[in-house]
Amino acid sequence: MRMVDLIQNKRDGVRLTREQLYFAIQGYTKGEIPDYQMSAMAMAIYFQGMDEEEIADLTMAMANSGDTVSLAGIRGVKVDKHSTGGVGDKTSLIVVPLVAAAGVPVAKMSGRGLGHTGGTVDKLESISGFRIELPSEQFIRNVNDNKMALVGQSGNLAPADKQLYALRDVTATVNSIPLIASSIMSKKIASGADAIVLDVKVGSGAFMKSLEEAEQLAATMVSIGKSLNRKTIAVLSDMNEPLGTEVGNALEVAEAIEVLRGGGEARLKEICLVLAAHMTVAGGAYPSFEKAREALEGILESGQGLATFRKFVEAQGGDPGIVDDPGLLPQAALQISVRAEKEGYVQAVDAESIGVAAMLLGAGRARKEDAIDYSVGISLRKKVGDPVRFGDVLAVIHSNKDQNQDISGKILDAYTIGEDRPDEVPVVHRVVQ
Amino acid sequence: MRMVDLIQNKRDGVRLTREQLYFAIQGYTKGEIPDYQMSAMAMAIYFQGMDEEEIADLTMAMANSGDTVSLAGIRGVKVDKHSTGGVGDKTSLIVVPLVAAAGVPVAKMSGRGLGHTGGTVDKLESISGFRIELPSEQFIRNVNDNKMALVGQSGNLAPADKQLYALRDVTATVNSIPLIASSIMSKKIASGADAIVLDVKVGSGAFMKSLEEAEQLAATMVSIGKSLNRKTIAVLSDMNEPLGTEVGNALEVAEAIEVLRGGGEARLKEICLVLAAHMTVAGGAYPSFEKAREALEGILESGQGLATFRKFVEAQGGDPGIVDDPGLLPQAALQISVRAEKEGYVQAVDAESIGVAAMLLGAGRARKEDAIDYSVGISLRKKVGDPVRFGDVLAVIHSNKDQNQDISGKILDAYTIGEDRPDEVPVVHRVVQ
Repeated sequence: MRMVDLIQNKRDGVRLTREQLYFAIQGYTKGEIPDYQMSAMAMAIYFQGMDEEEIADLTMAMANSGDTVSLAGIRGVKVDKHSTGGVGDKTSLIVVPLVAAAGVPVAKMSGRGLGHTGGTVDKLESISGFRIELPSEQFIRNVNDNKMALVGQSGNLAPADKQLYALRDVTATVNSIPLIASSIMSKKIASGADAIVLDVKVGSGAFMKSLEEAEQLAATMVSIGKSLNRKTIAVLSDMNEPLGTEVGNALEVAEAIEVLRGGGEARLKEICLVLAAHMTVAGGAYPSFEKAREALEGILESGQGLATFRKFVEAQGGDPGIVDDPGLLPQAALQISVRAEKEGYVQAVDAESIGVAAMLLGAGRARKEDAIDYSVGISLRKKVGDPVRFGDVLAVIHSNKDQNQDISGKILDAYTIGEDRPDEVPVVHRVVQ
Repeated sequence: MRMVDLIQNKRDGVRLTREQLYFAIQGYTKGEIPDYQMSAMAMAIYFQGMDEEEIADLTMAMANSGDTVSLAGIRGVKVDKHSTGGVGDKTSLIVVPLVAAAGVPVAKMSGRGLGHTGGTVDKLESISGFRIELPSEQFIRNVNDNKMALVGQSGNLAPADKQLYALRDVTATVNSIPLIASSIMSKKIASGADAIVLDVKVGSGAFMKSLEEAEQLAATMVSIGKSLNRKTIAVLSDMNEPLGTEVGNALEVAEAIEVLRGGGEARLKEICLVLAAHMTVAGGAYPSFEKAREALEGILESGQGLATFRKFVEAQGGDPGIVDDPGLLPQAALQISVRAEKEGYVQAVDAESIGVAAMLLGAGRARKEDAIDYSVGISLRKKVGDPVRFGDVLAVIHSNKDQNQDISGKILDAYTIGEDRPDEVPVVHRVVQ
């Protein structure tokens, strides 16, 4: 078999067989197939697409390209959750404790943030003492004891995907549904999930800008799940404005605790309950979405989710005191208000701009090797639909830098204020399963 | 400027500017742009194509990527000829002396053969003493003295094209009209041509299998010539069977001499006169194709073409005695007849198979570093349309090997013999200018 012939097949619209996809992915991982052939293949896939069977085969080839995690030591159906990434997306910190408190085990591996979107691992590391790496026996033991544990992704999990993603990034082949879908699903499958609930973000702050694209991606991932016998549900949720009010690592941990206490923004609570309900149904804890949702509201109100979160933090070496007093989390030196310069209603808060502003403060990484300042970020005091008067505080910058005018300007620019109250956009658009 | 953005533009059907194409080609030649980005770009070009202006800009960017030859020291319009490659294609050895004898200077650079097609340089090297490398002053002086000289291509002529061609070969991006056309034209322009006559081969033994593809390629190259002020004419000629009767280096030199003496196969003579006529019109020697053709027939019959060829061989150190006695050219030890195993008319002689058979005898190179045996090759005694009786000699193998059964079998397989006399296919299909 020669890679050049496989590229030619794909270029000419001939489907690739399982054997051919394994040959390509294994050869690429071993360094026997060079980047220049794989990038030509990725561009051919961009133009010619892949059918459902090809995408499933590519997913498995990448999932099997390195270490795979066995969760056989955990009792019950192991349900995983994945978000395609957004700004202010702290849902894992809320959803996982709720699901665990409902008795469904969650052995979660999460990534770090890059660019304008944050990562769950970075958020948890803002908790003093928290250890994101656990020996695998302890990982399993924690899940069995407390129904949840959350660790950073192993370096050798789906290495073909990691390599291919880096290549796609510099060859304009990121934006291909078969390649995005197989990339996400290969990591979930390598980390041992039995069932997967996907939060596919749509809107200006998300990778998928239109509902149509997001629906296509969701349908493709659900179809991969079907082919590979992993029950998969995709929730399409709005990312036209940041999720919740806080953007920045410690700020988002504090906001997650606030929601687990029964407070927080209604839209954030809503998406968390929807995701948790689908996860617990997939995990077999409840017979229907409605029953699950009702039960999870009870779990939230009774504080059982918060108690699970506290035990989880303690079990991974973090200071459980932050759960009772989020003031113990890292605090930035300066709080600077950004004030409205006109009246009306907030029409839009551009999520990507807010994400970039937070990154520039030090909350995120422009490049993989950048260090993070856990204490900084942005608190949004006005969100879409809110009335605003001249001089009202739109947002508060939490900064450790002397000069913050640029950031203020960026945040002001992210706000669109107009005369009429905009129509409400639901946080959950639809569910694909 | 970032290469990834240029790839994305091309991927999305946005045209590339001259500045962007120079950036890509210069960066690639210097090694600043990696193969994996260039192969993704080539695949995007494969799918999205390029407009006339883009193709002309790409051609100039490649022509200017290394050395360029100045033919300013030669008086008159410098006309070059290029063949897209075929089996038994010795036209340069006939056409160039005819054009030179008509007073149009030809300073030709030619390549070596690879795979089933031969190269003019290899053919000339079968002449004892012949030097294919000349100091550039002598090259120019020879052209001024004898109106013709022929040397091997400089190593640093259009290096971007050389690099890109090697990459396309292993990434399934060879078969793209904009890339093929700019590749050919960049070398011709770097070698200093004012006008270019292209022999675009069509058929089973050629790169372009269909007339439609060949017409597209021809039109694209003519349009590049127009954009860059180089008069360009493309002759579409048949390559469904080998050209002439001889395939192999010394054998083809002898056949060329035979034509220059007024003999040889009618189809071979025809294509040579057509190419030479277009070249002399482009060079300003005659006012019309018809007048040129008439004059060139006279030049051929009078032996002036042969005299020019003799002087050319002598001027480059070769033994001029071979012109009077082609028996002085290298001879193979064995002559083996391949005989017909059925009766009828020859329907087809697969050019590619004959080319491969000659290569296996040692007349060509499977890999660039292979050595050539100048004496070996194949003489075709029956060609398309000829009647054949059982036991007739179809071809003679000239070999220096003991075992030639495989070659015999291959040649026999290349012949299709059927009942009816096939329709005659003209050697020149049409001319694009």
